[in-house]
Amino acid sequence: MEKNNYYSQENHGPYQLFDLGDFQLEDGGTINNCQLAYSSFGKLNAKKDNAILITTWYSGTSKIMEKVYTGEGRAIDPAKYFIIIANQIGNGLSTSPNNVLAPLQGPKFPRVRIGDDVRAQHKLLTEYFGIETLALVIGGSMGAQQTWEWAVRYPDMVKRAAPIAGRARNSPHDFLFIETFTYALKSDPAWNNGHYREPNTVNFGLCHLADLWSLMGFSVEFFREELYMNIGFSSLEEFRTGFTQNYFLPMDPNNLLCMAWKWQQGDVSRLTNGNLVSALGRIRAKVFVIAIDSDMLFPPSDCETDQKLTPNSELRVIHSQAGHLGLFGLQPSYFEQIDKYLGELLTLQPEKESKYGHHTNAFPKSKVAEHEF
Amino acid sequence: MEKNNYYSQENHGPYQLFDLGDFQLEDGGTINNCQLAYSSFGKLNAKKDNAILITTWYSGTSKIMEKVYTGEGRAIDPAKYFIIIANQIGNGLSTSPNNVLAPLQGPKFPRVRIGDDVRAQHKLLTEYFGIETLALVIGGSMGAQQTWEWAVRYPDMVKRAAPIAGRARNSPHDFLFIETFTYALKSDPAWNNGHYREPNTVNFGLCHLADLWSLMGFSVEFFREELYMNIGFSSLEEFRTGFTQNYFLPMDPNNLLCMAWKWQQGDVSRLTNGNLVSALGRIRAKVFVIAIDSDMLFPPSDCETDQKLTPNSELRVIHSQAGHLGLFGLQPSYFEQIDKYLGELLTLQPEKESKYGHHTNAFPKSKVAEHEF
Repeated sequence: MEKNNYYSQENHGPYQLFDLGDFQLEDGGTINNCQLAYSSFGKLNAKKDNAILITTWYSGTSKIMEKVYTGEGRAIDPAKYFIIIANQIGNGLSTSPNNVLAPLQGPKFPRVRIGDDVRAQHKLLTEYFGIETLALVIGGSMGAQQTWEWAVRYPDMVKRAAPIAGRARNSPHDFLFIETFTYALKSDPAWNNGHYREPNTVNFGLCHLADLWSLMGFSVEFFREELYMNIGFSSLEEFRTGFTQNYFLPMDPNNLLCMAWKWQQGDVSRLTNGNLVSALGRIRAKVFVIAIDSDMLFPPSDCETDQKLTPNSELRVIHSQAGHLGLFGLQPSYFEQIDKYLGELLTLQPEKESKYGHHTNAFPKSKVAEHEF
Repeated sequence: MEKNNYYSQENHGPYQLFDLGDFQLEDGGTINNCQLAYSSFGKLNAKKDNAILITTWYSGTSKIMEKVYTGEGRAIDPAKYFIIIANQIGNGLSTSPNNVLAPLQGPKFPRVRIGDDVRAQHKLLTEYFGIETLALVIGGSMGAQQTWEWAVRYPDMVKRAAPIAGRARNSPHDFLFIETFTYALKSDPAWNNGHYREPNTVNFGLCHLADLWSLMGFSVEFFREELYMNIGFSSLEEFRTGFTQNYFLPMDPNNLLCMAWKWQQGDVSRLTNGNLVSALGRIRAKVFVIAIDSDMLFPPSDCETDQKLTPNSELRVIHSQAGHLGLFGLQPSYFEQIDKYLGELLTLQPEKESKYGHHTNAFPKSKVAEHEF
């Protein structure tokens, strides 16, 4: 058996591992020796108040977040901030179906929720780095789900939050999208209920999943104007295979399914007995809800419904023809716009007073269990 | 073997059959005794200038077009107009993979193009009814493709045209959509390269195809606002199964694939050596290009690109939260809006002079062959 080398330090590093120990999951079960992969840039100042947490999206790793969202002279500048980029559990760098020890490997990996990721990240930040305040939490798509969860779960710790192109509670339309692309993967006989020989034997399923991302991840205008030509592809067919299929083909199907379920079930109102108004009303951070105008998965009108329920928040819309995957910085104008909004947000102050007092973990583990559906 | 009773007079009639004889196809091959199914309403006047042709969309039949687009007191009123609704070849009422005689049945059915449908309809109108002028051609989605083809192919015969939510040349994004839902159907092992035992054995493939229609056929807002409740479904799951899956499940997979290929290849510029500007420039009809604002398949910006190339045309946008399948009249306001636009169009006069003279068939069969890609 050849080892899948996709999730390597060479491809996605350098990254470090933080040992979460025996990590209990919200849906039950424990991952022993659970590892949280992260990368960090810049220096934590003496007051420990210059930390920025960046989360990762579906199938993404810390590497792309570093490239697209940080850099010298950028809004998130390692010369100014201590930047931690945390990889999702299940993304292939943190503990995941493809790298976990027996007996949890492959299809036996337990169900992981957005709340598990956020609790794991909280452990890293507080216990390892001693950070009690975050200048900013930011993430796109599933990273936005984690950002929302952070702002609701730890309202006094998060000073600013920027969920980009993602929802506090996953939308029914998005639920359907995930149904279709997971079915696409599972319809490949080589998937074999997750007991495939090698990830790349699930070739047809991965290609079909990728095609659904081509369909929903960009925009009608992107294809009409042949904007893939600007990123080096000379035809629709070349883009479809060379970009989207090529992106997903080296990945592990069980990892993709683990993250898909997590995404599909994402809902901050799990913390407030299903009441979304209460959940978002807890937020103390200054929030910029950022949407992409051509996004077919999370259009501005959808993101705005969350923003309207969030105190001290504003909606910002990025103009892009690249749809949801504009998040990848496929158009140069994306960088200018995201830096403008994040730069502005970083100058603003959150509310001073918290009606929840000064604890940093508003929902201790026992409470979370009470709030399960 | 039980006969598939879905495509019956009871379900979709009353409809009549017009015998096209041995009908030669643009892509080669002949369908012997090819039948064009149609229904008609109202009376042709003495001058034979009150005829309206209505075409059908993907998987649709004359029945739904009758229900949603015609009626007493409506813009298309059988008391005033002679209305012919023509079923596509391959839709299960006209000659199709499921009802053709050997040796063309099932997967052996030849490839049919939009141009074949339009030539077949032209034969019915001119040879059987003696109609030389059409007050209006109207159709939605694939019906819009036929409407565009009519206006380009027979510019002096078509006085007015209203392509709704469809393109003159199919878009690359739409190409991808069709790729994904045809792959979904074919990924079912029961499909067996088109040699399935019974249509309903391809159950999983049909459900997956239907789910992709749920994903793309409506809108994010439709699901966010739970608008399916207005048409009798109490949950997303009930709508997904009870409406969309239930709609496609009784259909014949080879019929669906025949129409899908036709849709995917649709392009009026086949008539002008691939030059879309020339093709649309030929149009003499007064044209209302009608788009639906929440349509994810054919958004207004896409429809507008065709409109801008069409002389004597105007863009009209219907406000609907039901997306592309707003075409089904899922919201009462659809009826008001479509009647307003069609009523207005029917009062307008087309251009008087034609630079192409007074022939009614601008592209005799031999010419079409020359213009093949």
